[in-house]
Amino acid sequence: MNQAIQDSYDPGFQVCYGCGEHNQDGLKLKSYWDGETGVASFVTQDKHKGVPGFVYGGLTASLVDCHAIATAAAHHKQHYGADLEFMPRFVTASLHVDYHKPTPLNEHPIKLAAKIVDHSERKAVVELSCSVDGVVTATSKVVAVRIPDTMSL
Amino acid sequence: MNQAIQDSYDPGFQVCYGCGEHNQDGLKLKSYWDGETGVASFVTQDKHKGVPGFVYGGLTASLVDCHAIATAAAHHKQHYGADLEFMPRFVTASLHVDYHKPTPLNEHPIKLAAKIVDHSERKAVVELSCSVDGVVTATSKVVAVRIPDTMSL
Repeated sequence: MNQAIQDSYDPGFQVCYGCGEHNQDGLKLKSYWDGETGVASFVTQDKHKGVPGFVYGGLTASLVDCHAIATAAAHHKQHYGADLEFMPRFVTASLHVDYHKPTPLNEHPIKLAAKIVDHSERKAVVELSCSVDGVVTATSKVVAVRIPDTMSL
Repeated sequence: MNQAIQDSYDPGFQVCYGCGEHNQDGLKLKSYWDGETGVASFVTQDKHKGVPGFVYGGLTASLVDCHAIATAAAHHKQHYGADLEFMPRFVTASLHVDYHKPTPLNEHPIKLAAKIVDHSERKAVVELSCSVDGVVTATSKVVAVRIPDTMSL
């Protein structure tokens, strides 16, 4: 695949705890776009537990959030922003996660897949799944909007 | 206030990244219950940024998640579990967060407030708000369920 979406943001935006290359303490999630689907993979560590053996719900929500925002950005650049220098920055208007099964910790990676189900130039609705070893443990819907001027660099 | 709800879980459950006293890398959120409302306060650090100056969405989701689960536990113990030795452990069935305004980083704490809006012995529906300096930046609804046997200690 090509460069990670997050590594194509304006460098000033590559600071997010969930996905910024320049956040030394963060999760550094990397998302990729193939023109139709956003995919990402995350290897959990023992500290990411909620209860023994299983991921805490906030980690799943964090991964889904950053991956949805990245997918919205890549989709936007493809459909509306061919002239943009960087991947456009979106922020989260709403996040919904349904936890179907416990997500096991410290085994195989959490795989994320995202599709855009509705969009305008300002907004994208993203549906996502999280799975481990092919078993879907959570599904999600995120409404992403272009970053407001008050949050811009 | 009395002891934090999370510090009243079975010690084996005090390991969550979001709220476990025994997770050295985690956020150690502490929630308190006054009989009607669950409250918590969290001081952000610079690393918790999403974009410069503002909290990443996954942090808000993580705090809301742990606080809702704790509030469901305290409410359950009050209404159904007077004989329980520890606070009962709930897990998240679904999490919804609406982000109304950017949450500022590194200023005053994020304050969380939670109320139970529906409940049975097995389940609680929790509505929450996150605010900074009295300004509500996010609201949330969490469905919490008693932990299944497959996740128990």
